[in-house]
Amino acid sequence: MSFAADIVTLFPELFPGPLGASVIGRGAAQGLWSLRLTQLRDFATDRHRSVDDTPAGGGAGMVLRPDVLAAAIDAVSPPGDPRPRLLMSPRGRPLTQARARELAAGPGAVIVCGRFEGVDERVIEARQLEEISIGDYVLAGGEVAAMALLEAVVRLIPGVLGGEESHADESFENGVLEYPQYTRPQLFEGREIPAVLTSGDHGKVEKWRRAESEKLTRARRPDLLK
Amino acid sequence: MSFAADIVTLFPELFPGPLGASVIGRGAAQGLWSLRLTQLRDFATDRHRSVDDTPAGGGAGMVLRPDVLAAAIDAVSPPGDPRPRLLMSPRGRPLTQARARELAAGPGAVIVCGRFEGVDERVIEARQLEEISIGDYVLAGGEVAAMALLEAVVRLIPGVLGGEESHADESFENGVLEYPQYTRPQLFEGREIPAVLTSGDHGKVEKWRRAESEKLTRARRPDLLK
Repeated sequence: MSFAADIVTLFPELFPGPLGASVIGRGAAQGLWSLRLTQLRDFATDRHRSVDDTPAGGGAGMVLRPDVLAAAIDAVSPPGDPRPRLLMSPRGRPLTQARARELAAGPGAVIVCGRFEGVDERVIEARQLEEISIGDYVLAGGEVAAMALLEAVVRLIPGVLGGEESHADESFENGVLEYPQYTRPQLFEGREIPAVLTSGDHGKVEKWRRAESEKLTRARRPDLLK
Repeated sequence: MSFAADIVTLFPELFPGPLGASVIGRGAAQGLWSLRLTQLRDFATDRHRSVDDTPAGGGAGMVLRPDVLAAAIDAVSPPGDPRPRLLMSPRGRPLTQARARELAAGPGAVIVCGRFEGVDERVIEARQLEEISIGDYVLAGGEVAAMALLEAVVRLIPGVLGGEESHADESFENGVLEYPQYTRPQLFEGREIPAVLTSGDHGKVEKWRRAESEKLTRARRPDLLK
């Protein structure tokens, strides 16, 4: 059973895009996860193939129609589908590394990409869409957000990254930001690699990295330490 | 003077991708912003065109070399370039709508996309890279993060979205999440559009929306109200 992602979007041609590159794309080629795209416009019912209309009560922009979106969701995710149905939206709960890990351990996800001013609230309720946000800023649509979410999730699927241990020291995995990294050359514009890292003393290296992680987190993200 | 974005990446072929679609792509076609891509590998100096090496002190993954990255940055952003130099990184300060607005009002941005375990700390210091994060999760690389950042920024450049007023009610602009939206049909699976929205009373609509925004923010994101 591999991770099955469904995306409902007005821009299926943007995928796989970055999700076809690097380890993420290789993971799909190896069958560790799969991506299916659905063009929302195919579920429009009028001859103009409209998917949106003006907001009730007035205001700028256009709102996705509940009936069209519900039909698209029902087509990809029939009753009984165990996968969570996510709506990429700045109003959603912020995506975290913990949530990404939870999703990666599950059967997949149905991801709805919004556009325009938003999505009719009734389809969010009726189809129990879980609004999820990738950060506290507003995008033009949900497509890039869906890419970010899937990239964060797919790299956590066992086998996608080579060495399983490469996750352990990452930012957020221990509630702290990652320590500074160094590589060759030994001397760069007058700056040396910190001596402890080339000392060969693994205990000291470990201790230094932990201290640097904590220092950095205190300075930049004290909220993570609470 | 339009907004000039430079991206340094190992995957230039992923761009413009979503940044070529919709209003964001139209904005570029209208000259409101521009995107230039630089292949980091072109700045490698050995015959294998290496851009990375193993981390000093041991550990999984590979680290981007400081000398190669510095050469790429210097080529796109000579001394005196007024644009901020951003490194997409989970260790960075989280991107916010306020920071997106600040960037949109400026001359552009030089954006470095990391890959592998990270970037040698010395080039971050020596080239004064500002680490910026799109959220509290880890991606496979900085490319999708750069897309998210640019999409958030470019849509705020005057002229990119049609009506300037379409920003005013968005999530985060007033420190709250956006109110629920509704559109046709009037009746969807037994659910009506709230009567206030079709009352024609603009004062009442306004009041309802403000109350709904506050209720939603209290329920989902009490942290935004602090």
